[in-house]
Amino acid sequence: MMHRYRSHTCGQLRATDVGTDVRLSGWLHNRRNLGGILFIDLRDHYGIVQLVVRDESGELAGIHEKLSSLSKETVVRVDGTVTARGAENVNPELPTGEIEVEVSQVEVLGGAEQIPFTINAEDGVNEERRLEYRFLDLRRERMHRNIMLRSQVIAKIREKMVAQGFNELATPILSATSPEGARDFLVPSRIHPGRFYALPQAPQQFKQLLMIAGFDRYFQIAPCFRDEDARADRSPGEFYQLDMEMSFVEQEDVFAVIETVMTELFQELGEGREVTSPFPRIPFREAMVKYGSDKPDLRARLELADVSDLFAGSGFKAFADKHVRALPVPDTASQPRKFFDSLGDFAVEQGAKGLAWVRVAEDGSLSGPIAKFLTEDDVKALTEALGLVPGHAVFFGAGEFDEVSTIMGAVRVEAAKRAGHFEENVFRFCWIVDFPMFEKDEETGEIEFSHNPFSMPQGGLEALRTKDPLDILAWQYDIVCNGVELSSGAIRNHEPEIMFEAFGIAGYSKEDVERDFGGMLRAFRFGAPPHGGIAPGVDRIVMLLADEPNIRETIAFPLNNNALDLMMGAPSEVDDKRLRELHLSVRKPPQVKPAQ
Amino acid sequence: MMHRYRSHTCGQLRATDVGTDVRLSGWLHNRRNLGGILFIDLRDHYGIVQLVVRDESGELAGIHEKLSSLSKETVVRVDGTVTARGAENVNPELPTGEIEVEVSQVEVLGGAEQIPFTINAEDGVNEERRLEYRFLDLRRERMHRNIMLRSQVIAKIREKMVAQGFNELATPILSATSPEGARDFLVPSRIHPGRFYALPQAPQQFKQLLMIAGFDRYFQIAPCFRDEDARADRSPGEFYQLDMEMSFVEQEDVFAVIETVMTELFQELGEGREVTSPFPRIPFREAMVKYGSDKPDLRARLELADVSDLFAGSGFKAFADKHVRALPVPDTASQPRKFFDSLGDFAVEQGAKGLAWVRVAEDGSLSGPIAKFLTEDDVKALTEALGLVPGHAVFFGAGEFDEVSTIMGAVRVEAAKRAGHFEENVFRFCWIVDFPMFEKDEETGEIEFSHNPFSMPQGGLEALRTKDPLDILAWQYDIVCNGVELSSGAIRNHEPEIMFEAFGIAGYSKEDVERDFGGMLRAFRFGAPPHGGIAPGVDRIVMLLADEPNIRETIAFPLNNNALDLMMGAPSEVDDKRLRELHLSVRKPPQVKPAQ
Repeated sequence: MMHRYRSHTCGQLRATDVGTDVRLSGWLHNRRNLGGILFIDLRDHYGIVQLVVRDESGELAGIHEKLSSLSKETVVRVDGTVTARGAENVNPELPTGEIEVEVSQVEVLGGAEQIPFTINAEDGVNEERRLEYRFLDLRRERMHRNIMLRSQVIAKIREKMVAQGFNELATPILSATSPEGARDFLVPSRIHPGRFYALPQAPQQFKQLLMIAGFDRYFQIAPCFRDEDARADRSPGEFYQLDMEMSFVEQEDVFAVIETVMTELFQELGEGREVTSPFPRIPFREAMVKYGSDKPDLRARLELADVSDLFAGSGFKAFADKHVRALPVPDTASQPRKFFDSLGDFAVEQGAKGLAWVRVAEDGSLSGPIAKFLTEDDVKALTEALGLVPGHAVFFGAGEFDEVSTIMGAVRVEAAKRAGHFEENVFRFCWIVDFPMFEKDEETGEIEFSHNPFSMPQGGLEALRTKDPLDILAWQYDIVCNGVELSSGAIRNHEPEIMFEAFGIAGYSKEDVERDFGGMLRAFRFGAPPHGGIAPGVDRIVMLLADEPNIRETIAFPLNNNALDLMMGAPSEVDDKRLRELHLSVRKPPQVKPAQ
Repeated sequence: MMHRYRSHTCGQLRATDVGTDVRLSGWLHNRRNLGGILFIDLRDHYGIVQLVVRDESGELAGIHEKLSSLSKETVVRVDGTVTARGAENVNPELPTGEIEVEVSQVEVLGGAEQIPFTINAEDGVNEERRLEYRFLDLRRERMHRNIMLRSQVIAKIREKMVAQGFNELATPILSATSPEGARDFLVPSRIHPGRFYALPQAPQQFKQLLMIAGFDRYFQIAPCFRDEDARADRSPGEFYQLDMEMSFVEQEDVFAVIETVMTELFQELGEGREVTSPFPRIPFREAMVKYGSDKPDLRARLELADVSDLFAGSGFKAFADKHVRALPVPDTASQPRKFFDSLGDFAVEQGAKGLAWVRVAEDGSLSGPIAKFLTEDDVKALTEALGLVPGHAVFFGAGEFDEVSTIMGAVRVEAAKRAGHFEENVFRFCWIVDFPMFEKDEETGEIEFSHNPFSMPQGGLEALRTKDPLDILAWQYDIVCNGVELSSGAIRNHEPEIMFEAFGIAGYSKEDVERDFGGMLRAFRFGAPPHGGIAPGVDRIVMLLADEPNIRETIAFPLNNNALDLMMGAPSEVDDKRLRELHLSVRKPPQVKPAQ
């Protein structure tokens, strides 16, 4: 007996099915009436199939009339027979394009009113309206594909983590407030007046406790929550991480796991875009010099060079005794003056006062605005240091290290794009390693942690006790792809003695540490294994794969960038009875801004 | 080069590894000193391996001394050589029991203070203390096994849903309050004063919207939140469901998917306990009569029978014109009087006034307290109706239908256990189907929904318009295993017209429906497919498989039954600055109860 709703899906029928009686259900996607012959695209999750009703009169008249009158997006069931399309009507873009279905019966399963915007075209509907009718917006092909991509990304991550011996373990969502980091979302307790749970910003403490509990290789597609304002790459509210942690490991063990996951994932879902492994390991300091950034976009095939030494005693005042960074760009000397001026404008937009540059002529001589300030020795030294050959252009930035890094880092990527040194259709991953453990506060001159105080210092206790703090590196790392930081991670400091020593250098007393981090310290005292991990952002991975700059295009039901759910009407007011039950009252500002 | 921490895990070494130099890391689980020879059980996630230090003096003296002095649960790395145990020392209970490792080097990786309770034995440590030190409690073998079982359950569910064409899609956690059901947990909005998000009690609306958006087969291991007091089978706070929904389906399509998942899951993780499929479909009314419950424990191989008719005009006042339920129990007539009295006591504990019973003798005659009230015709009719043969005992309950069902339902299971008609080591699933759509309020006499107002009525619009409402059944179902309800589910009512008609019967005007359920109604008006689903509770599945009656034994970091996280100290007070930021103030009762 035939299924009540369908014998096949709308994406399933092929030339080999010709002659089969079929039943299909789906949405009325499109309709054309060509000289009395009715063509309908019927759409479901799996694809689109063409229905045809040839007979306007006769026994099919009723069906013709019914299908002609239904609104787009009506859900129907049809019975019919698969027929071959004539050679001239084959649609090679559609997997079902060799056949059509001659309809013999039709039933409306779900009526549709006039749809507020078109489903079958990418038009400029405003985003608020799309979010209000998200259940319709998600029917568009691009949105449907993005959401399915997200589902596949997560399924494949799980598969690859399990294949490497990791177990997915859930950590609590109703949890404790964390003393630092971003703002927590809070959840008032009904049973305990005046007390609040917090939604986790990340399951950092829980995953370390799982290591101490002996679970060895943990991961979780972990929901995380930060009460922060929206950014293009972060939804307000919730986001997901591939949170992972492993015991009895060094940094390279974590890298091996994550490189396997990322390489396979991006190869399988990247639609042919290249991914190569191993990922280069770039020390933090080197990244800042060469790329002006600790999240370098390695698709830009250009590198900066520190040429400060060459100009240390120079007569060229703009460079002398400053930090000077050079960007040699091959095959660019012949670009018109406009090219250089326009890149200069770009540098100014980044905060530069201007952009110095020279060209290398066929005879190896330099020309351009600053050429006249360079001595013969300068030219020789530069040519050697930068490996200049005819055709090179060189751009310069001078000033403080950080400022020059920011500006010349941006110029590097832009110059690469404009001069044809930027690779498209590749995913260029790298690890940034060897972050400094400490840095000096510019204003107070005091030593403080530069990144994560809970990372294990390289060299351990001995390094802390014997080395200049500013020379101590941490077992801490970032994973970066195409200029996007996917996550920081670290080998954790699991030894109370090393923790006290490290915090001591940063000016914390033992009592401070006990007071602020007593919970973790207590756990470290009952047999903690060496452990480390990382937590790449799932949303950013999906955005990279989908090539979508707006995170909301990759989430089924996102809040808008004002943290409103326009479809469900959240957040909303609650009645006073419920507030009393939660031991709360609202401090209202004089004028409450409506939620929509 | 050897890995910094281990060449093998503690569960990995076998007789074939004898002679290999190995490096192991783990926890010092146990230690014995037998005449100067030191035996140590080293434990990690993967197993336990025996270390041995034979030489108390000589070059191993230092290692002997060090390993003798370390506290239990210290984390160490050891280097050594795998040696075969003598035949008399092989431990067949340990996968590594044929070998031991002669230690040549030892390094402490993580020190341990005196542990507050023993890890390597199941003793009677109080639960509060275990939760306070959950990171130690989770090192116990039983807890470790339970948490890993939960991880496997979830991984296998995902695998089996994906294999059946389902896609996992995440729905929002910061969402809208629902107008009914249990209490929501609320999350105050910082950006929108006086407004609150709610954590989802279940993603019911979102999954239906996904169907309307055309995703066809959705599932999610969905975190759900209810601000309710704790129960043995439900944690306060959060719990997980296998939430699923599918389009263009009838009830049997949902059953087929879930039966496949459950059968395979329980077969693969049930450690040999039997599971059989297909699961019986038992109409709700039949379940109430035969089992006295809509969550029958089918391990009890006994059935109740409605024998009211036999006593309709009886002279036996206790039964006459009452609802009378009989429980025939084979091979029980020869039980001593004490057996019958004790089961009677059990019935009284359930709320019965007493428990009537008879025995069937070898000649087919009945004896027992109520035998004398039965006429020859009564005996004949009973014998025939219940298929009585010598050896049977029959228990009776009489009164109102519901009350008799509750009591005799409990007696049925208890009698089965006591009389040897209860199957151990099996999982007996069933579907309860054909729930009534409506019922009459006993007090007001008005018609109301009996279960889920959003289920599709069987017979659709026509049934609603033509049948007695009390005769209308719903496409609604429960899945039950061993007396535990895992979930309700339904084919949804996706047609506004049928919704208005059904709510009309239950006394709601069109305006009521528009006001209360406008969001879903709006979505149904833009082309909704027929759809249905279910959401079996993951926690209950794990409890069944782990055979743990306390849900907290199956969760890594549960709240206690007073909704406190004793390890992390949640919920906790927050400072007034944060409260102001959230536009809240606390209404404190005079005396705040401390959270611990």
